[in-house]
Amino acid sequence: MSEAMFTANNLWILIAAVLVFIMHLGFASLEAGFVRKKNTVNILFKNAMIIGIGLISYCIIGFNLMYPGVNEGGFFGFAGFGLSMPEGAAGAIEYADGAYTYWSDFIFQAMFAATGATIVSGAVAERMKLNAFLVFTLVFVSLSYPMTGMWKWGAGWLDALGFYDFAGSTIVHSVGGWAALACIIVLGARKGKYTAKGIRAIPGHSMPLATVGVFLLWFGWFGFNGGSVLSADPILVSLVFVTTALAAAGGAIGAFFTSYAMFKSHDLSMVLNGILGGLVGITAGADLMSPTEAIIIGLIAGIIIPLSVVFFDRTLKLDDPVGATSVHLVCGIWGTLAVGIFGSAAGLGQLINQLIGIASVGVFTFAFAFLLIYVLKVTIGIRVEEEEEIQGLDLAEHDMQAYQEKEESFAFAME
Amino acid sequence: MSEAMFTANNLWILIAAVLVFIMHLGFASLEAGFVRKKNTVNILFKNAMIIGIGLISYCIIGFNLMYPGVNEGGFFGFAGFGLSMPEGAAGAIEYADGAYTYWSDFIFQAMFAATGATIVSGAVAERMKLNAFLVFTLVFVSLSYPMTGMWKWGAGWLDALGFYDFAGSTIVHSVGGWAALACIIVLGARKGKYTAKGIRAIPGHSMPLATVGVFLLWFGWFGFNGGSVLSADPILVSLVFVTTALAAAGGAIGAFFTSYAMFKSHDLSMVLNGILGGLVGITAGADLMSPTEAIIIGLIAGIIIPLSVVFFDRTLKLDDPVGATSVHLVCGIWGTLAVGIFGSAAGLGQLINQLIGIASVGVFTFAFAFLLIYVLKVTIGIRVEEEEEIQGLDLAEHDMQAYQEKEESFAFAME
Amino acid sequence: MSEAMFTANNLWILIAAVLVFIMHLGFASLEAGFVRKKNTVNILFKNAMIIGIGLISYCIIGFNLMYPGVNEGGFFGFAGFGLSMPEGAAGAIEYADGAYTYWSDFIFQAMFAATGATIVSGAVAERMKLNAFLVFTLVFVSLSYPMTGMWKWGAGWLDALGFYDFAGSTIVHSVGGWAALACIIVLGARKGKYTAKGIRAIPGHSMPLATVGVFLLWFGWFGFNGGSVLSADPILVSLVFVTTALAAAGGAIGAFFTSYAMFKSHDLSMVLNGILGGLVGITAGADLMSPTEAIIIGLIAGIIIPLSVVFFDRTLKLDDPVGATSVHLVCGIWGTLAVGIFGSAAGLGQLINQLIGIASVGVFTFAFAFLLIYVLKVTIGIRVEEEEEIQGLDLAEHDMQAYQEKEESFAFAME
Repeated sequence: MSEAMFTANNLWILIAAVLVFIMHLGFASLEAGFVRKKNTVNILFKNAMIIGIGLISYCIIGFNLMYPGVNEGGFFGFAGFGLSMPEGAAGAIEYADGAYTYWSDFIFQAMFAATGATIVSGAVAERMKLNAFLVFTLVFVSLSYPMTGMWKWGAGWLDALGFYDFAGSTIVHSVGGWAALACIIVLGARKGKYTAKGIRAIPGHSMPLATVGVFLLWFGWFGFNGGSVLSADPILVSLVFVTTALAAAGGAIGAFFTSYAMFKSHDLSMVLNGILGGLVGITAGADLMSPTEAIIIGLIAGIIIPLSVVFFDRTLKLDDPVGATSVHLVCGIWGTLAVGIFGSAAGLGQLINQLIGIASVGVFTFAFAFLLIYVLKVTIGIRVEEEEEIQGLDLAEHDMQAYQEKEESFAFAME
Repeated sequence: MSEAMFTANNLWILIAAVLVFIMHLGFASLEAGFVRKKNTVNILFKNAMIIGIGLISYCIIGFNLMYPGVNEGGFFGFAGFGLSMPEGAAGAIEYADGAYTYWSDFIFQAMFAATGATIVSGAVAERMKLNAFLVFTLVFVSLSYPMTGMWKWGAGWLDALGFYDFAGSTIVHSVGGWAALACIIVLGARKGKYTAKGIRAIPGHSMPLATVGVFLLWFGWFGFNGGSVLSADPILVSLVFVTTALAAAGGAIGAFFTSYAMFKSHDLSMVLNGILGGLVGITAGADLMSPTEAIIIGLIAGIIIPLSVVFFDRTLKLDDPVGATSVHLVCGIWGTLAVGIFGSAAGLGQLINQLIGIASVGVFTFAFAFLLIYVLKVTIGIRVEEEEEIQGLDLAEHDMQAYQEKEESFAFAME
Repeated sequence: MSEAMFTANNLWILIAAVLVFIMHLGFASLEAGFVRKKNTVNILFKNAMIIGIGLISYCIIGFNLMYPGVNEGGFFGFAGFGLSMPEGAAGAIEYADGAYTYWSDFIFQAMFAATGATIVSGAVAERMKLNAFLVFTLVFVSLSYPMTGMWKWGAGWLDALGFYDFAGSTIVHSVGGWAALACIIVLGARKGKYTAKGIRAIPGHSMPLATVGVFLLWFGWFGFNGGSVLSADPILVSLVFVTTALAAAGGAIGAFFTSYAMFKSHDLSMVLNGILGGLVGITAGADLMSPTEAIIIGLIAGIIIPLSVVFFDRTLKLDDPVGATSVHLVCGIWGTLAVGIFGSAAGLGQLINQLIGIASVGVFTFAFAFLLIYVLKVTIGIRVEEEEEIQGLDLAEHDMQAYQEKEESFAFAME
């Protein structure tokens, strides 16, 4: 491959990594907007630490678990601790058939890695102990995410089987969703959510912050899906941009009509989650779909969102403050199945492979997360005290408040 | 063209599309910051839907209306419904002389398309019915914007004439501005704005949100103008970056001094709109100007902003909560004229061509928007009820509030 | 160099410039979040004006002072006023050995230039006169920053000596930090900060805004450091991305543990400043470090942050509302020294060169800034009146408020 092609391909992987990075601000903003004011510092703190913990643990363990470079078609492999660039410049260039360097590969994948824990962060908001959450993040990102990631992207057994997941509807999003589900089952609902008098809606404290978050996630998703081409291939990357954008648009439209039919009002949080649902839905097959198919996949994801949110909240009585299970788990499953139904890979055989992938990753991840959170529960404890939850985690865990409302009187008192 | 050049050119068009995408968050934040708290969810909701409606309608109709590929030098053309990639990989590469693929062309243009309606969104804020606005958006983005866009960028009659509009001072910004003007004339002012006691200033509810919006718009404008080179040509794209940045800086300086002279205070909203005015002003000729000319064009746009805002508000008594008509219409006209006055295309002949372009696009767009909003007025109605306007659109249309202030007492009440 | 390589290299410099641009929104958000509500418009206004003033003054004077193209190894040089592209297209391409155009060079460096003043902006917040600050910005960015910048990056005497500062731990960050230090010494603390009753913590008004700011700064830092490779060299740029990200992650972890040990709570502002400290710390040697060394440099920077913040606040009683001196000055010095301790350039000789660079730039910048702020103090005055400070700068200087809380009652009163 020519130097110029190598440079252009590598540049795109790096820019895509930057775009995926900013998704962490998207998650932080979205989750902060959807929680109550008294728990805002806590959710911001968690998101700042997740990216720190995620990058370093992926550097030490995760990357070499996910891409062991040995044991093709297998279930497990490990290339040792820490990063080790292939020898010299030539090694870096020959890496990955000359499409990008070893460092680019690591940083792009590392930005993905913390996403799983970020998804959990929102679901367990407003009631989980900070330290327990950070330990969960460390173990989950170091071990569970790279294990199942290796099955597909590390040339493991699901890849050998023919399972298809372009940018991670299953490998990233439903993995986060399964972990979130396990955590909220073990953790229980927020106080006052499900009472004898009925189910309380607990609205988030800032819709502007949540909206900023969703637009930033959409923005970053062009890197998430577009970078997953793993080169700057003009036709593939541009097709992926089109399908990604149209699925998100379809998600907005689907959630708009469905939530209006269900609630007789124009619910902003449903449209925002509909956009995210459309994005998660297209992620598994973003390189396989036509524009029309992308719109349909997004529309269906958008229709799923309000139905799923209501199902988790009212039927299952599982408390998920940001709708992470609906967006990432349910739409992650939908997007993975869609590869067997729509697009150039559709077919019954593919659909069965997709089901095997969904089920195997789901069983492993749910079991791992359930066990991990359970062990944390019986050891260091996972739930804050009742009075801390009422007071809010910002004061209880951080001795801070997200907003200072009354500084004028304070300043006068100084005189 | 070599594969490497094709890849680099195409990559830039895609990245530019991502930058234009984030301008929608810029508009959403700016408009949300400039409206009252009680109408914040509504403006966020509109902006989330605009991008959804805009992308899908441009995919189905708009793109083929704007770039019909037939009828060169004409007034109207249509290449049929939906997207259809040129046959195979070769077709994709030969498309656009090898500078970018068909998909890249679509996604870059589609990100532009919704901008017209976004500009209207701010001007009609705080009093227009949501459904009427969404229907307006759908029809305007599907038909009006691509029609006049085709006159210039689709090789239509204005292009044949010699009208110059590099990245859309007229074709995008004044189009949005004319539509906004038609809408606010038909819609009328917000209640309490113009009373017997005088004209009330109605300040926006969050200057931080508005500021975030302006910086994001400036950020995205490097893609809006830089991508309009339609290749990664190093000299042209870098020159466009320089003129774009300097015009925005000039706009800040111009608005700073003018608004201080007028109001004897340092008005942040004027400086923010001055920056946007500078950006709109340079857009028509960003590839033709020297750095000094770019600063002058921006300075003049910055001087225009406070004068124009006061003229619309006090003289014409046209209520535009975000100053969209001053920024996009007046500075759009100024920037288009500036091509005939400054830079390498300056001259009387060019100036006349610019005037013809401004007038023809203006007459068509204003008439289209006026008729459309009038038809909506007499059919489904365009204005919310008086009590809804007083209560705020967030509760009236969305049954939500943008901010939850009192969750502590709520949580205690749960016990 | 081939056309395709030139195009790819140049494209990266331009994209890096866009990323550095958005750091100005990062600074604006961070500083706004860390000040009191009553001074929010003021800090946003300053940040909007800094980028305007910075770009234009760098265009007129600064760029030609910093890169005079003459007097190699010297102390001072000036290539004349304004921009002047090398003759024709060939000149633009031959410029900088074909890695980027003259315009790309200017815009990338211009985005850096305003950063120095932005750092000062936060430190002097809540008490400095707007006009005095803007004059300070103009003179400092026009003269002081480019002078010391020339010593290293303009092939001046520090460069000839062997001083190493890859992307500006000293040349950008500690320059801003020294200026901030001089200003807060001359300006004095905010009223009510240091009283007979003790030292008051004055918490910022919005942690979400501060968090958004830090994530945007991190996002932009990939352009700040990555673009400083001055080409799209795949190995170097990707290595710089890895070291930059890991140092920031290390900063988060270091500040997490240190601030918990010191304060027994999880202080979000310390973790946020820890991330920034890690980023400043890696900036001087981002191209020289291994991943492990990057983590260590970041960790140490993160440990430094809470210690330094407490030292400035409690020991020196120097009032710095956003911690700019700790982040930019102290971690800037640390990062510059780290080049002599870690990585491929480490050694006693290098360490001495680093010390000479730190000291010479520090002495010049501190003296320049001290003299400048002192002259402003005795001429136009630098401190707002006591009642203005109590009332808040937003009302005193801008006749505006950042937030409108009570629009409902206003609207009803209109009826």
